[in-house]
Amino acid sequence: MLLVKNIGLLQTPVGTHSLCGPEQAKNLKLKDAAVAVKDGKISEIFADGAEPPLSKFDRVIDAEGRLVTPGLVDCHTHMVFGGWRHNEIPLKLKGATYLDILRAGGGILDTVRHTREMSEDELLNRAKGFVCEMLRGGVTTAESKSGYGLDLNDEIKQLRVNKRLCEETPMDIVSTFLGAHAIPPEFKDRADEYIDYLCDTVLPEVKRQNLASFCDVFCEDSVFDVMQSKKMLLCGQKYGLKSKIHADEIEAIGGAVLAGELGAISAEHLIATNELGMDSMARGGVTAALLPATSFYLNKTYAPARAMIDKGIPVAIASDFNPGSCPSLNLQLCINLGYLKYRLLPEEILTAVTLNAACALDRGDAIGSIEVGKNADLVIWDAPNFEMLCYRFGSNQVKTVIKKGEIIQ
Amino acid sequence: MLLVKNIGLLQTPVGTHSLCGPEQAKNLKLKDAAVAVKDGKISEIFADGAEPPLSKFDRVIDAEGRLVTPGLVDCHTHMVFGGWRHNEIPLKLKGATYLDILRAGGGILDTVRHTREMSEDELLNRAKGFVCEMLRGGVTTAESKSGYGLDLNDEIKQLRVNKRLCEETPMDIVSTFLGAHAIPPEFKDRADEYIDYLCDTVLPEVKRQNLASFCDVFCEDSVFDVMQSKKMLLCGQKYGLKSKIHADEIEAIGGAVLAGELGAISAEHLIATNELGMDSMARGGVTAALLPATSFYLNKTYAPARAMIDKGIPVAIASDFNPGSCPSLNLQLCINLGYLKYRLLPEEILTAVTLNAACALDRGDAIGSIEVGKNADLVIWDAPNFEMLCYRFGSNQVKTVIKKGEIIQ
Repeated sequence: MLLVKNIGLLQTPVGTHSLCGPEQAKNLKLKDAAVAVKDGKISEIFADGAEPPLSKFDRVIDAEGRLVTPGLVDCHTHMVFGGWRHNEIPLKLKGATYLDILRAGGGILDTVRHTREMSEDELLNRAKGFVCEMLRGGVTTAESKSGYGLDLNDEIKQLRVNKRLCEETPMDIVSTFLGAHAIPPEFKDRADEYIDYLCDTVLPEVKRQNLASFCDVFCEDSVFDVMQSKKMLLCGQKYGLKSKIHADEIEAIGGAVLAGELGAISAEHLIATNELGMDSMARGGVTAALLPATSFYLNKTYAPARAMIDKGIPVAIASDFNPGSCPSLNLQLCINLGYLKYRLLPEEILTAVTLNAACALDRGDAIGSIEVGKNADLVIWDAPNFEMLCYRFGSNQVKTVIKKGEIIQ
Repeated sequence: MLLVKNIGLLQTPVGTHSLCGPEQAKNLKLKDAAVAVKDGKISEIFADGAEPPLSKFDRVIDAEGRLVTPGLVDCHTHMVFGGWRHNEIPLKLKGATYLDILRAGGGILDTVRHTREMSEDELLNRAKGFVCEMLRGGVTTAESKSGYGLDLNDEIKQLRVNKRLCEETPMDIVSTFLGAHAIPPEFKDRADEYIDYLCDTVLPEVKRQNLASFCDVFCEDSVFDVMQSKKMLLCGQKYGLKSKIHADEIEAIGGAVLAGELGAISAEHLIATNELGMDSMARGGVTAALLPATSFYLNKTYAPARAMIDKGIPVAIASDFNPGSCPSLNLQLCINLGYLKYRLLPEEILTAVTLNAACALDRGDAIGSIEVGKNADLVIWDAPNFEMLCYRFGSNQVKTVIKKGEIIQ
């Protein structure tokens, strides 16, 4: 048995479901605490200097008075991809738009080309490097989407990488099928036919190999409209895949409304969402996965996080790591942005990157908070409190990462 | 002798003086290059696969095809301080202004209190941690300002820490006397008398112990006006200290104009500067030290970097690391901001964090570029080109740091 002792401040949201409204700001804060771990799960929590019987433990970690939180959960990433897109910088500085670059064969199609060219092992090795860096930054569970293959073999290849990342690294990976990320060159101007192809040919194989927990779709003007998105997600549900949706990033064409109607677990981006969308999400119990580093990188406005909390929508915050719109996997920077740009309270932000993010992955029963029975995924921070994580930026403030009771970092 | 071989791309500005206008965008780019180092200085540069005679070298570093640039220069930091100011976050989220916090005894006076309470050794040990992190991030020379002591003993204490940082770490530290950073409680509402005190009592001792190369002043509404700033800087010049000035950060009260008139080496911040200020800087040959991470952290606008370059003002970019307005020492993040927010070209940004920053410290003769005779301060990046450093953010892309020919990291 493991004991993490001498925790100056243990701060965590509480529960197994997404927290919304005033609940999102409620963190349990224990001083002079300790956490006992048995078989990878939290077995007992001590507070106010209560002395656990040290003889019971074969390993003791001294937190030396530091802050301990649940391991961070990054609930929206596209971490399996080939190439980078730094070559777009000179074009962008000259004023090229996203569509200009796409028309020149760049943009997401560039990433698709590079991803298709790489073998499963090559993609795996590269993504392992990202996973290691995420772990060093305090992330203990991450979502990973496909969506740069856009055909049967290459989507399956990406999803197999997700599976192997989960098996071969300490990170828990939640796999999402996002075949409907873009329209591949082979289906140019034939989005409906591509959705049919995904539903009839790719999804059955995803299911047969049991490679994904979620189905996602990029519902956006010039990508997939609401009807196509609905078809995709319902087909996913038919195969047992829970729904996520890239919604209202650029225009509110109805993605958030659809999320609520379909009972999606989460809707993501939401920069441009409106009252209608938010009301539907609130009714449907959809968690909003907000991606502030993408707003930062694209010089866009920031999603209306406070309005969502006021409407009773649970807010999660994720990195959106991808080579196009957010070449950063740094979730600590998203914590800073949660404070600086969303103006959320530190407690709301902690909930957003732990319990609500876990619930956006439908894992609130097992992770996302420090409670007896949950996985012992913990971070000891080189900081006295969570305010310090909102405040200092650009430095990795992780001291120690514990994953299912094992010291990872 | 050391050889750094197999450099995929060697990219550097060229010269010993600040580059301005179109010159700022001119980088030397050598492919398949190698750099020979003798006695800590660059002794020879090879390009286009030219084979240096390997037998001459007792140490060889293989850059494995990566990008090599000059070591970064952070020309504006306040890295010697006590405490942090994360406790201000809840107040700020409730709408407290800088002045509200200051009136409640917080803000910079909080940092002054903590800095005064710490011994020289305590401050030194803390700052060494920051210096190590800067080195790991590719910074090989940094400026460090006093200005949290605000009395004779405590200003000298801070400057002695600068001296010892330079002696006891691999970082070259350029020390700046910034006694006129704020009006200390002892001189409340008596700014003129405080300037007299600095000129008559503190500066002579700074000079006697030879503790600073520069004198700086915070020229701003409610801090020191133009006349007070002029008196401070001229007094510094009398004692042989070159001039820097915190100018036009919040309001253009004349700081940038003064910088040009006095022949200051650099003017810093400049968010609110105007035509008059820029014209004076251009005439006076003043380098602009821009601090984008401070704009980011304070949600302010960004200094008009492009307008400055168009006017022939050399632009440097620095971190402004300090506990109040920029709790980040990450100069790589400032490179990202140079691209994302200033919209500078990658080449202009490289010049801004190397040669122009070196010139803002009057060190352009010895550092800031990869040229024969300059110090062998080099960074091998885990990147193929400088575009990658503008593009990826939130990850430390340093592979190896070489300081005066020694591998630091």
